[in-house]
Amino acid sequence: MNTIKNKLFFTCDYMEGAHPDIIKRLVETNMTQSVGYGLDDFSESARNKIRTACNTPEADVFFLVGGTQTNATIIGAILRPYQGVISAETGHISVHEAGAIEYGGHKVLVLPHHNGKINADEILKCIESYRQDGNCEHMVMPGLVYISQPTEYGTLYSKSELKKISEVCRENQIPLYLDGARLAYALACPENDVTLSDIAKYCDAFYIGGTKCGALFGEAVVIPRHNWIPHLFSIIKQNGALLAKGRILGIQFDMLFTDDLYYKIGTTAIEAADVIRKELQKKGYEFAFSSPTNQIFIILDKAKAASLSEKVEMGFWQNLDNDRTVMRIATSWATKKEDVVKLIEIL
Amino acid sequence: MNTIKNKLFFTCDYMEGAHPDIIKRLVETNMTQSVGYGLDDFSESARNKIRTACNTPEADVFFLVGGTQTNATIIGAILRPYQGVISAETGHISVHEAGAIEYGGHKVLVLPHHNGKINADEILKCIESYRQDGNCEHMVMPGLVYISQPTEYGTLYSKSELKKISEVCRENQIPLYLDGARLAYALACPENDVTLSDIAKYCDAFYIGGTKCGALFGEAVVIPRHNWIPHLFSIIKQNGALLAKGRILGIQFDMLFTDDLYYKIGTTAIEAADVIRKELQKKGYEFAFSSPTNQIFIILDKAKAASLSEKVEMGFWQNLDNDRTVMRIATSWATKKEDVVKLIEIL
Amino acid sequence: MNTIKNKLFFTCDYMEGAHPDIIKRLVETNMTQSVGYGLDDFSESARNKIRTACNTPEADVFFLVGGTQTNATIIGAILRPYQGVISAETGHISVHEAGAIEYGGHKVLVLPHHNGKINADEILKCIESYRQDGNCEHMVMPGLVYISQPTEYGTLYSKSELKKISEVCRENQIPLYLDGARLAYALACPENDVTLSDIAKYCDAFYIGGTKCGALFGEAVVIPRHNWIPHLFSIIKQNGALLAKGRILGIQFDMLFTDDLYYKIGTTAIEAADVIRKELQKKGYEFAFSSPTNQIFIILDKAKAASLSEKVEMGFWQNLDNDRTVMRIATSWATKKEDVVKLIEIL
Amino acid sequence: MNTIKNKLFFTCDYMEGAHPDIIKRLVETNMTQSVGYGLDDFSESARNKIRTACNTPEADVFFLVGGTQTNATIIGAILRPYQGVISAETGHISVHEAGAIEYGGHKVLVLPHHNGKINADEILKCIESYRQDGNCEHMVMPGLVYISQPTEYGTLYSKSELKKISEVCRENQIPLYLDGARLAYALACPENDVTLSDIAKYCDAFYIGGTKCGALFGEAVVIPRHNWIPHLFSIIKQNGALLAKGRILGIQFDMLFTDDLYYKIGTTAIEAADVIRKELQKKGYEFAFSSPTNQIFIILDKAKAASLSEKVEMGFWQNLDNDRTVMRIATSWATKKEDVVKLIEIL
Repeated sequence: MNTIKNKLFFTCDYMEGAHPDIIKRLVETNMTQSVGYGLDDFSESARNKIRTACNTPEADVFFLVGGTQTNATIIGAILRPYQGVISAETGHISVHEAGAIEYGGHKVLVLPHHNGKINADEILKCIESYRQDGNCEHMVMPGLVYISQPTEYGTLYSKSELKKISEVCRENQIPLYLDGARLAYALACPENDVTLSDIAKYCDAFYIGGTKCGALFGEAVVIPRHNWIPHLFSIIKQNGALLAKGRILGIQFDMLFTDDLYYKIGTTAIEAADVIRKELQKKGYEFAFSSPTNQIFIILDKAKAASLSEKVEMGFWQNLDNDRTVMRIATSWATKKEDVVKLIEIL
Repeated sequence: MNTIKNKLFFTCDYMEGAHPDIIKRLVETNMTQSVGYGLDDFSESARNKIRTACNTPEADVFFLVGGTQTNATIIGAILRPYQGVISAETGHISVHEAGAIEYGGHKVLVLPHHNGKINADEILKCIESYRQDGNCEHMVMPGLVYISQPTEYGTLYSKSELKKISEVCRENQIPLYLDGARLAYALACPENDVTLSDIAKYCDAFYIGGTKCGALFGEAVVIPRHNWIPHLFSIIKQNGALLAKGRILGIQFDMLFTDDLYYKIGTTAIEAADVIRKELQKKGYEFAFSSPTNQIFIILDKAKAASLSEKVEMGFWQNLDNDRTVMRIATSWATKKEDVVKLIEIL
Repeated sequence: MNTIKNKLFFTCDYMEGAHPDIIKRLVETNMTQSVGYGLDDFSESARNKIRTACNTPEADVFFLVGGTQTNATIIGAILRPYQGVISAETGHISVHEAGAIEYGGHKVLVLPHHNGKINADEILKCIESYRQDGNCEHMVMPGLVYISQPTEYGTLYSKSELKKISEVCRENQIPLYLDGARLAYALACPENDVTLSDIAKYCDAFYIGGTKCGALFGEAVVIPRHNWIPHLFSIIKQNGALLAKGRILGIQFDMLFTDDLYYKIGTTAIEAADVIRKELQKKGYEFAFSSPTNQIFIILDKAKAASLSEKVEMGFWQNLDNDRTVMRIATSWATKKEDVVKLIEIL
Repeated sequence: MNTIKNKLFFTCDYMEGAHPDIIKRLVETNMTQSVGYGLDDFSESARNKIRTACNTPEADVFFLVGGTQTNATIIGAILRPYQGVISAETGHISVHEAGAIEYGGHKVLVLPHHNGKINADEILKCIESYRQDGNCEHMVMPGLVYISQPTEYGTLYSKSELKKISEVCRENQIPLYLDGARLAYALACPENDVTLSDIAKYCDAFYIGGTKCGALFGEAVVIPRHNWIPHLFSIIKQNGALLAKGRILGIQFDMLFTDDLYYKIGTTAIEAADVIRKELQKKGYEFAFSSPTNQIFIILDKAKAASLSEKVEMGFWQNLDNDRTVMRIATSWATKKEDVVKLIEIL
């Protein structure tokens, strides 16, 4: 890919290194000595900024390396062996983590999705159906609800939807975990009404994604209630998820939460996506479903998709039928305005 | 630690960021677009350089993030459920990985260590003792031998020792895995006679350490025989060990294997350690054991250790008795000559 | 339950101890001394009779205690960590084993069921869909197909259906495993055209159920190809599935395969079920689906179900809608003719 | 073994079926109908008798099938993922369970044994050593202490030893689990001063062994504090350790705790062992160590061992040196007085 000239890439949101401000800070701090494993001052500073941003002064914050690792480690830490995690059938943990949750010993209890989302009623029904089953002790107990914001389909939970899910969870003593791999793109989206504080209020654990939102890598796990997961440090180590030079994560998240960088990163991507969306609409393109964040899913007939693919690389999503395919256009913090113009010209 | 003035740090070999050449390259390549998951050109280039350095043109090379992760993933991939891994009782997997191997379902079968090393005779005895036991099917079958070069004690296997262990393993159809977390410091050590080619020849899998040898993070797993571990990509993903922006690992290892950087990094550390060792010997310090690499283990009485700790931070190793303690001095690619001079003055 | 007078029980097929012939033999052999762990002469005799019945002189035969244990142990022994097992969504391993398969690290890949069965086309589609997915290495690889005969719904695979599934599996190098928890009731069913030899021919592993077919407990695992699963003895031990007094299993299966007892046990149950089925049909009862074996699923309105439950205990299956419920009537080797007559009178 | 005439077998304590009283009761109750999974009246009766015998009216009692299964299930249910279990290096879970504990994800933290026992001081030292280690979060946390009564060496913890261990455990918030695979032989031993009530008082969980103490199979897990392990039923099911016809376990333990049968069974074995021990002492045989229960460990030179093995089968224990071997003589509830006489003649 590095060598192809004159081709545009809108394949995904992790094609470059890191946001230049992050790189700059890594360079500046490179020769500073620090202790390892996230006990350094950079990490502590980042943790404090995240606590402030989430309005959770007591929160535990841990920095892990990647999304699958984070999901497997935290979900495994929360669940007891006989419990499973409720997820949309389209959830990342259900489909695209190579069975990491099951490898950790837990069943993913899937619910049907509605443009990537699950709803409070169906969650409740799933929990009640377990509890009312005379044979429930022979079955996997729902022990956690997993959602992502935005979802795999680029859609958003509204504040009221999130609140309802949280209420069902709390009434049933089942924790709620939110996967924020692309959270920057939700937070920066004009349609979004869910803040970091809301997430911290309604969820028992969540992570703020770095890898897909401008960092080299890294995910910041937030546990609003201090020590809600005892010995999480050891659990992270045991899962091979403890970075020796934890400072590299600390420095990156410290920058992401300095001068609103995390929001700016999201805004760049969302503005580019909005421009593309509007132009596509004008040109009469059909969308597979409505997604307001940095991912756009368009329906193309296969001949068109093939001819376009010579000039622009999009992500293959799925075949709709024999003639038509769904392609994904993803923008990011690194999307250049001139590339957006070129893309529109091509399409 | 960041703010303490006039104090020296010889605590460990991962207190700074990365070697400046690596940082420079990360900056240069930052805005280049590439595909994810290690399928990019940077990673391919790094793989080829490693294949050349190891004299194994067919080798599979995978880049993972950290040592515990690498050990757990690769050992878990090699062993069958009923098998365990033979290791020195002092091996990293036995003591300092928070039970990651057992979390993956496997017993660590410990052998006594000799300054951190195990020997071919005792390995053979362990295997034969299992095979000759009438109840062996009720016991854990040895399925892999784990060694590290240098060991936890900074000691080195000689080529003839490595060869003997390898022969015992092959005669008994048990693979041999080498943990090279600090391999640069072995390769650069004048006492060392084991090359990368030797390791590739005598081992079935090993990793070349980046985290403790000048990279921000990263370990390069080498499997000399192509496809010896089928579907390792999926296994890595399932273990949460697949970096989305795999290029960051590729770029780092590409630099480490350009212009002998990996060897230079080792040499800097070894030269500093040699200077310190000689001076300590002159001054009459006693060593806990002889270690020719970048770690020096000195015996101090506790009062002396306490007074030194105000001026120089060393790593605590263990209490020898009520009065004396063993402290570790570690050098690295980042150790400055002036700090070595200062250290000698203080000691 | 023991004390309720004048009530009939058609709840399930494991309400009594063991078939009297088995009990008699346990009494006769009680004081004979033997070695443990299935290495005794009784077990060897049983293994040989099973090999003969399956027409597989080379087969490995192991006796385990229960169904969930057997499924978890054997499926776990066959799969590699990155693989999952294809099953009907209604399969026992999918629903009623408390997540034992996931506890062992593997995902159950569910297919829609057709009266409890899955078909060759959908299995093939599932395998191809995985293999054709560009991201398949991020997903769980199908590594085994699980079916049961009869199914959870009491239905049967025909020989041609089984053959087709087997062909799809073999063309795709994916083994086929058959759960025969109630196999006696399939083998004795007039509609059935699948023999033990057929099963041994078309499957790579299967078990002949004892617990629900007249034994105190016990399942006989048959691996037609000798040593196809190496070190299975150790795997069984590690799964806590090795009975110390293995002879108790050997004696029971030796009896089950003496003088056609296993078939006779099935016949008793099937004949009783057939009588009940015919009478219910005459009386105009509606069946939830057609099941030719020892389980009958009838649709009752809830008032009727409630009034019947005072005189006869059936198994609750599921609510069909607000007014109607599906109840299961199960017969067994122990079903008495007079109780069948009474049941028909009541219904 | 079944066919060898005129040879004596003192190999182990599970060579026969079950105590005749148990067999008789299984015959009597065979056609009684009952619900499954241990919810039947027989099991409830057995639970109540065990509660009475242990002086723990609130205890949870579960019946499992075998020892390895019980240890793996209960230890796995108690430990959190980052915790390991402290055991004598000679403990059954450490050596002879094919790695079942590690398969469940947990390290066995071994302590040196003293004739099979561990002591309170060394347990305390192990716990403190973990807690005082600056790197303890990188290590496996002791989360449970495992002992057995009698031990693998046939030795006994005295009441004061057990009390001390229990105190260390409770002061450090670490539960204590006792494996009573051969508990009948401890309870019936004149040297023993530890009652079932003591065990229930000092331990957080333990099991009363059936398999090696006169039952066909079965172990009764006792959790003195009700619901101390929540959802243990599901955990047992998930571990494949739930017997469908749970009544078979209930009936056996109901008999074992009727009319002191469990104590009588122990007494028969101990009396036989005492006779043998005294005679051996008279004849000048040397014991490998002193064991007061139903196992006797004698040192034989190899020629003698070989010649004896033609007339009597003993259990091979270990080679002492090139010339001498340790052999085990085990008695049981089934040991006949005339066989004891014959054995003494032979020796």
